[in-house]
Amino acid sequence: MAGLAPRHFLWSVDGRVATIRLDRPDRKNPLTFDSYAELRDTFRGLVYADDVDVVVIASNGGNFCSGGDVHDIIGPLVGMDMRDLLAFTRMTGDLVKAMLNCGKPIIAAVDGVCVGAGAIMAMASDLRLATPAAKCAFLFTRVGLAGCDMGACAMLPRIIGQGRAAELLYTGRVMTADEGAAWGFWNALHPAESLDEAALTLAGRIASGPTFAHGITKTQLNQEWNMGLDQAIEAEAQAQAICMQTQDFERAYRAFVAKEKPVFEGN
Amino acid sequence: MAGLAPRHFLWSVDGRVATIRLDRPDRKNPLTFDSYAELRDTFRGLVYADDVDVVVIASNGGNFCSGGDVHDIIGPLVGMDMRDLLAFTRMTGDLVKAMLNCGKPIIAAVDGVCVGAGAIMAMASDLRLATPAAKCAFLFTRVGLAGCDMGACAMLPRIIGQGRAAELLYTGRVMTADEGAAWGFWNALHPAESLDEAALTLAGRIASGPTFAHGITKTQLNQEWNMGLDQAIEAEAQAQAICMQTQDFERAYRAFVAKEKPVFEGN
Amino acid sequence: MAGLAPRHFLWSVDGRVATIRLDRPDRKNPLTFDSYAELRDTFRGLVYADDVDVVVIASNGGNFCSGGDVHDIIGPLVGMDMRDLLAFTRMTGDLVKAMLNCGKPIIAAVDGVCVGAGAIMAMASDLRLATPAAKCAFLFTRVGLAGCDMGACAMLPRIIGQGRAAELLYTGRVMTADEGAAWGFWNALHPAESLDEAALTLAGRIASGPTFAHGITKTQLNQEWNMGLDQAIEAEAQAQAICMQTQDFERAYRAFVAKEKPVFEGN
Repeated sequence: MAGLAPRHFLWSVDGRVATIRLDRPDRKNPLTFDSYAELRDTFRGLVYADDVDVVVIASNGGNFCSGGDVHDIIGPLVGMDMRDLLAFTRMTGDLVKAMLNCGKPIIAAVDGVCVGAGAIMAMASDLRLATPAAKCAFLFTRVGLAGCDMGACAMLPRIIGQGRAAELLYTGRVMTADEGAAWGFWNALHPAESLDEAALTLAGRIASGPTFAHGITKTQLNQEWNMGLDQAIEAEAQAQAICMQTQDFERAYRAFVAKEKPVFEGN
Repeated sequence: MAGLAPRHFLWSVDGRVATIRLDRPDRKNPLTFDSYAELRDTFRGLVYADDVDVVVIASNGGNFCSGGDVHDIIGPLVGMDMRDLLAFTRMTGDLVKAMLNCGKPIIAAVDGVCVGAGAIMAMASDLRLATPAAKCAFLFTRVGLAGCDMGACAMLPRIIGQGRAAELLYTGRVMTADEGAAWGFWNALHPAESLDEAALTLAGRIASGPTFAHGITKTQLNQEWNMGLDQAIEAEAQAQAICMQTQDFERAYRAFVAKEKPVFEGN
Repeated sequence: MAGLAPRHFLWSVDGRVATIRLDRPDRKNPLTFDSYAELRDTFRGLVYADDVDVVVIASNGGNFCSGGDVHDIIGPLVGMDMRDLLAFTRMTGDLVKAMLNCGKPIIAAVDGVCVGAGAIMAMASDLRLATPAAKCAFLFTRVGLAGCDMGACAMLPRIIGQGRAAELLYTGRVMTADEGAAWGFWNALHPAESLDEAALTLAGRIASGPTFAHGITKTQLNQEWNMGLDQAIEAEAQAQAICMQTQDFERAYRAFVAKEKPVFEGN
């Protein structure tokens, strides 16, 4: 997918790491119907991509994403009938499902504004880095809606705890960068000038493999979300046995015996 | 429900915020068979109340609640047969179910002692404020019982994490106010003299709406508790589409376009 | 089980607290096929043990456990067919299942290296104490495998949060002792010289009862893992009613009335 040329966001691939940036920095990078759909299709395509192993969703012009555009999205929604409303909310949910099911770790690199559907995209990523200026808000309540948008009532409590999630979802208030780091929403904070580098370094480390096994890790983190404990343990016995038949497992063993660093190849 | 006159606890309504206080401050506000039942019935009634949008459970005389009264409750339980014991534990569980299913956000404002069933009432609230003097203990083990009381083994791990919950439930020890704040049990700490004001301010902010959407948020936080991720995302697509047909959603949009603050009306 | 004489780890019983130590301190206490199987069988046996109420898994020679031995375990796994691989991953999972289902609280006392399957044993314990030198890593990815080993993708997110768990599982990096304490993985840190004493003191406190109720707490923490909220509350109503028919419940009440400290007997 290195040659992908999306129309509604920036896309680049360096090594086996793809970087996505929304590209309306003058408006803090809102989502539109078009960019929602194209992002969804891109993450769906990543399932079958052999040339991308990790995705970074980066900021642009000092901001990550201002969520669904008020004029382009919220305006038209007011007045839609239920069929069309549900088609829209399902499309936004499909973006999250596509991110969860794309089989590649996703790292959000968040500077500045990260609100509404933008906060959801960060939440639905596997790892999240931010700057001290990151302002994250699940502000659906402030536009007259419920906190349950694109999976937030399910996912946010598992990341930061049920009580903190409830506060953010009922009030729509900003979670400061320090709060987000203390609560486990952000994996780490970095100065704005080194955020991209930090994200790409982490991405490169993960892309160095074992990438097949990383895909299984991602699958199991989602798959075991609501399994019983005994069932989760059996599921992992099966999933790990699959990984033990990869050559990457043998490569790691051979490297260890030879006191070398393993070079993984993703099979 | 503004005119409610409960016999076993204090009740007042200011604007659209109801405040509940247990009223035996000389004994740190224990629960009795009567107050359990009346609280359960009150929260059940709130489902259909049009004049209350948020509930504050406040402290009284420097304490929140000392749990089931040893003389009034524990004494009689010793010696009951299984039919009556189960009727009692189900009634206490019904209080939690009624709180979870009442459709209105609940804020606990906790000073001093908050133990046993009192700690459960705080845990089953949506948001929790406390003072530095708050002493919260799930002390069931200290009266010879298990930590699994009124949903604690399910809910406490999701609020503060599985390991911390296990410690509190096995030992029955006090969680200090600082621990509770650091662990996400308390959303914030306030000095005792401003606790009620802080709780009422937060309640007022939430009561300013959108209240229909808040009810959906509460429903979904409970509903998605043990759903799979894809199922939760579809459930939110449906729930949010419902909210997009409310007038409050349109009111927020109109206010945004007019650069005004939206005034929500709960429909 | 006080007289147990395992061949592949150290075992001692003091009072009603059993202590387990892996015993290859020169190699930081790796697990072998034999010690896995014997540990599994020991925890299975504990279900029926009347003379042990709490288990401490302690460190030895400054380290807890270095995980599956590279030479004794990983070497043979490379080249096994799927039937044998699955037999192995199921055996390791069976150790975790046996720990979860043994009916007695388990306390891990972790100094130094605690990695791979060693980190899993700590994770699968109910309570976890550590020293400032504890180095915990879920390093499966570094040997070419997925993070989903022995239940890690299910359990670790519930202990430290989904985002932090994802980072540890994708990178295999060390969680420092301070991180582990801040994140709720460690219940407390103690200096190395007092770690065993702290663990035994905590174990003694829990072993002082009510032990039957503690067993129910452990059961319910596992049982309610993926129950709905209303179902969990009903399950606790039943479980707690059972505990209310124990003599320990009455003993606690009698002691309270007599202003004495209750002496529990586990029935």
